[in-house]
Amino acid sequence: MTVLIDPLHQLRDLLEDPSRDELARFFADKQAHEVAYLMSHLNRDDQMLLLTHLTPADAALVMEEIPESQAVDIVSDMTASDAADILNEMPSDEQVDILSEVKDVDAEAIISLMDPEEAADVRRLIRYESDTAGGLMVTEFLVFSETSSVIGMVEELKVRRADYEKLSIKYLYIVNEAGRFAGVLQMQDLVFSPADTLVRDIIIPDVLKVGHHTTLDELIDFFHTYDFYGVPVIDDNDFLLGVVLRKDVLEEAVEQVSMEHLESQGIVGGEELRTMPIWTRASRRLSWLSINIILNMVAASVIAFHQDTLSAVIALAVFLPIISDMSGCSGNQAVAVSMRELSLGVVKPKEVLRVWMQELSVGLINGTVLGMLLGLGAYFWQGNIALGFVVGGALCLNTILAVSLGGTVPLLLKKGGVDPALASGPILTTVTDMAGFFLTLTFAGWALGRLL
Amino acid sequence: MTVLIDPLHQLRDLLEDPSRDELARFFADKQAHEVAYLMSHLNRDDQMLLLTHLTPADAALVMEEIPESQAVDIVSDMTASDAADILNEMPSDEQVDILSEVKDVDAEAIISLMDPEEAADVRRLIRYESDTAGGLMVTEFLVFSETSSVIGMVEELKVRRADYEKLSIKYLYIVNEAGRFAGVLQMQDLVFSPADTLVRDIIIPDVLKVGHHTTLDELIDFFHTYDFYGVPVIDDNDFLLGVVLRKDVLEEAVEQVSMEHLESQGIVGGEELRTMPIWTRASRRLSWLSINIILNMVAASVIAFHQDTLSAVIALAVFLPIISDMSGCSGNQAVAVSMRELSLGVVKPKEVLRVWMQELSVGLINGTVLGMLLGLGAYFWQGNIALGFVVGGALCLNTILAVSLGGTVPLLLKKGGVDPALASGPILTTVTDMAGFFLTLTFAGWALGRLL
Repeated sequence: MTVLIDPLHQLRDLLEDPSRDELARFFADKQAHEVAYLMSHLNRDDQMLLLTHLTPADAALVMEEIPESQAVDIVSDMTASDAADILNEMPSDEQVDILSEVKDVDAEAIISLMDPEEAADVRRLIRYESDTAGGLMVTEFLVFSETSSVIGMVEELKVRRADYEKLSIKYLYIVNEAGRFAGVLQMQDLVFSPADTLVRDIIIPDVLKVGHHTTLDELIDFFHTYDFYGVPVIDDNDFLLGVVLRKDVLEEAVEQVSMEHLESQGIVGGEELRTMPIWTRASRRLSWLSINIILNMVAASVIAFHQDTLSAVIALAVFLPIISDMSGCSGNQAVAVSMRELSLGVVKPKEVLRVWMQELSVGLINGTVLGMLLGLGAYFWQGNIALGFVVGGALCLNTILAVSLGGTVPLLLKKGGVDPALASGPILTTVTDMAGFFLTLTFAGWALGRLL
Repeated sequence: MTVLIDPLHQLRDLLEDPSRDELARFFADKQAHEVAYLMSHLNRDDQMLLLTHLTPADAALVMEEIPESQAVDIVSDMTASDAADILNEMPSDEQVDILSEVKDVDAEAIISLMDPEEAADVRRLIRYESDTAGGLMVTEFLVFSETSSVIGMVEELKVRRADYEKLSIKYLYIVNEAGRFAGVLQMQDLVFSPADTLVRDIIIPDVLKVGHHTTLDELIDFFHTYDFYGVPVIDDNDFLLGVVLRKDVLEEAVEQVSMEHLESQGIVGGEELRTMPIWTRASRRLSWLSINIILNMVAASVIAFHQDTLSAVIALAVFLPIISDMSGCSGNQAVAVSMRELSLGVVKPKEVLRVWMQELSVGLINGTVLGMLLGLGAYFWQGNIALGFVVGGALCLNTILAVSLGGTVPLLLKKGGVDPALASGPILTTVTDMAGFFLTLTFAGWALGRLL
């Protein structure tokens, strides 16, 4: 009989009397998602106990596999010296990702206790924006002089073999005598070239490179265009600053798409994990909700101006939430398509008119169908054909308005430098609610004689 | 004076009298997003004209840079022989991605005109599910025998150098005499080893490998855990089937997150591009909207049952859409956090109770604040404190319900094998609408004497 032991219980047992070897063995066969799962189910004390009882290198691996916001919280709570030991073992881009989110005074305390070389790298890198080539690059790679011969370089590589094996960058970077970036050498060119060849003669000299200010979007596009493993980052004087890896750009792209989704659903100020303190979670959500409730009250005030119509035909009150909700759905579909087309690059923010025309046709079809559905529903329920025309007509027109706005608002916001993921939804629903209530109650006012 | 020429006009001019060389020059300096933009602004005839006037290799590059659904449409409209020429030049995973979406009879016609070797690969690969290792792997890589010596292998590599340079996989795959997968050799091991060493003695024999049925989620986790460039895919008999590249997995992960977002906003059946035919776009959106309008009518029927209360206190009609919309917002925030935590792996579908408890606390805080805001708004507007308690109390309770459902429904759907991105929203809003209307109108019924 196989006894299945719950890994979480197993880990908690191990932490009762933690031993470095047993913990290392426990984590040796764990996949990234299991590590993330286990860590997020420990309380902060146990997280600390665990990390300080692993070797710094193993602790660094654990830290790389948990969500970044959790890693930041843990580092903030650790002693600076424990944090420094672990951070020493992480790649430079992740050191900086974490330290730039930690409070400045804590970060300074940690950096001052790190290896001098690592600390110098961090101080240099932390100045770059996180979503630029400077913020995404790593500084762990091997540099050789272009004046070596192939055999000399092979000998040097053999000496530095242990370093090389640890690197994730398998290209070799070559600089000239002035220290300026000269080109890239691939391992196979060492294999294919005679021993006395000068490195200078076999490098790829005119490799594509980027400046440190290159944005994430540009890098995504770069790696979409070119099938490279990484791209060198240089400064204005052609000195090599670092290397941006394709995998880091793609991982950041996944993150960006996820964050946009969270924002569009009203999770603002970064990701929320349920392990965060309740007040942080509640207040972040509230900051967005409280703007929305005010916008909602403004929109609903349209109803207040038409109370006479409404009291005359109370059945209308049933249809107001339907028209509001359905217009929101239609508009959000158009928002989603615009956000998708913007991210694919197949539409530019200035093409507002073109997108509007493309949405209008869909709006006409879907508005007509939805209007007829709602109109028929109203007719069969109340046996009043005028009511059917009032609510159906209002939904039809409001659907056309909603898809027009939904398609174009993200483009206009993007053009205006406002984050469309965050602002499109509230703007859309406020306007379509107001218009939907206005259309329904105005049409009803006109047809009042036939509705009673 | 610099004259800026719009690239789209320039391309259309070139297509008036297309020349292979001029078109190749035009595309030579274009980034992926520019190519995607230009292609999506040409009509189908011009797209065809362009692709058939480029060399098949250049046309393949263009096809790789446009959205996949567009590539599928274009291939469907081309002659089978033009399509075969272009597909011959694409990596095996992208050949299969496109051909598996084309109508079976068209795909068969194209495959039969492709290079026999490419065609055999496609026929073999097309049987795998697209989001498994079998569907994601490429078959372009170099295989060597473990019985070669280092010098023999270097000589062989020199002969196949042109092939090697074209590959995106820089590992060398080694098989034993029976043809079974034996291990991986990295280029640097050839550099570091004496010429007469047997390959068998320097390969990494116990590399991690995956079966063809390994899912995308497992692969994402695999590459999160291990810093590899690619992973070999083997069959049950240890024969090497292909290699899954980290970059392909990450690109697929970006796609998956984007698709989930589109689905949650009601774009179903794959991505929508505005270049698709209007009827396709309208009917896909409608399929989701028509389910929603029915759910909406069901929810709103709750209002119909309380018309007496509503006609007595017509002001309530102003608050019903607000309560419906705000509960939807609060619930969707919880849905977004659950979807995020599921994808990070920090929560498992069975942890419904734990998530519910974590949402309850946020719901209590946010429900109280939002209820007070709405209650105060109602009081100041109508000067009636009972109205404030009725609508504030209803919103408070309904917010608690909404976050409870929003947090747990995605987990329950996932456990039940239903796609939570698609179904969470409609289920959530229908239930919270019904509950919100019921609570408001029931409370109002109880307090009727004080509301008049």
